[in-house]
Amino acid sequence: MPAPHSLDTLVQALRCLPGVGAKSAARMAFHLLQRDREGALQLSEALARAVQTMRHCERCHTFTEAQICSTCLDPARDPSRLCVVETPADQAAMERTGAFGGMYFVLMGRISPLDGVGPNDIGLKKLLDRVNDGLVQEVILATNFTAEGETTAYVIAQALKARGLRTTRLARGVPVGSELEYVDLGTIAHALAERR
Amino acid sequence: MPAPHSLDTLVQALRCLPGVGAKSAARMAFHLLQRDREGALQLSEALARAVQTMRHCERCHTFTEAQICSTCLDPARDPSRLCVVETPADQAAMERTGAFGGMYFVLMGRISPLDGVGPNDIGLKKLLDRVNDGLVQEVILATNFTAEGETTAYVIAQALKARGLRTTRLARGVPVGSELEYVDLGTIAHALAERR
Repeated sequence: MPAPHSLDTLVQALRCLPGVGAKSAARMAFHLLQRDREGALQLSEALARAVQTMRHCERCHTFTEAQICSTCLDPARDPSRLCVVETPADQAAMERTGAFGGMYFVLMGRISPLDGVGPNDIGLKKLLDRVNDGLVQEVILATNFTAEGETTAYVIAQALKARGLRTTRLARGVPVGSELEYVDLGTIAHALAERR
Repeated sequence: MPAPHSLDTLVQALRCLPGVGAKSAARMAFHLLQRDREGALQLSEALARAVQTMRHCERCHTFTEAQICSTCLDPARDPSRLCVVETPADQAAMERTGAFGGMYFVLMGRISPLDGVGPNDIGLKKLLDRVNDGLVQEVILATNFTAEGETTAYVIAQALKARGLRTTRLARGVPVGSELEYVDLGTIAHALAERR
């Protein structure tokens, strides 16, 4: 089938989405054209607008439309504690807990040598500038508990220690609501070693 | 986190894609803005262009930019055989086999009472008009071998039988390259009943 040109282009363009291969892209294109042209147009506009308006907050590096994001500008937040997370989604998860009232710094990535992402490709230099504001006293490392996240936390901790700042890491341990029988051994071993 | 407005809009808009929930949409939006703004703009343009230019072929109902698609216009194809498929992707699969040189009719859907899709919501009426061109002698039903696809094939076969047209269905049986031990029982039973 010599497929029509603009459909081909759409299928190809959909493959820029993470986790979308050739078959998913074709299914998405078909769905949009056959059942949801309105949604396709909205998506087209939302993409163009987001690319045009979204930039990085000058203080915390997260996505924002303004020069400085609303979280950084909030006078009710405690400027002495700075929580370092990998992505805006991680920041949102922290916020949903309601347990943290300090500031954030969003790395927008993690160190991942296998993917060619080194310390200079995440916002490390910007973070080191950020903690020199004279107000930050504690940096809470809330990167993920994956190999990459742990590496990232370690590199940042080393860099900050050289500046005499107090760095902490989220506690590792048994998740709330879980039964020991079903928790993986590494987690139980960590929880035992870090018992309190 | 009071998330920025145009990012919210983008995440919401991405959810119009089939199989994309809130978390996937957020991950896609983050990926596009952080790593592939070029791809995001291309996708935006491809969506707008496809919605604007794609329409249905007047003869076979598939997507095309022209009034009649190139497959229907191809003089080398045999107009006496008409293959009925559910989607353009199914048509593409048939074409890749290289085993069929006739015409197509693309239903753009299947009968699915559970989803509220009846015979009038797929191109049944258009198909009945199409087969009255005086050239079609055999209608090959190549809808999927799912419950919905079988229902669709049955309904179409009944409608065509009333018009005295010869209808056939793709053979059911053991897939090429498979070992009986691993083939599901329903397939083996069908292959046995329809042995030749």
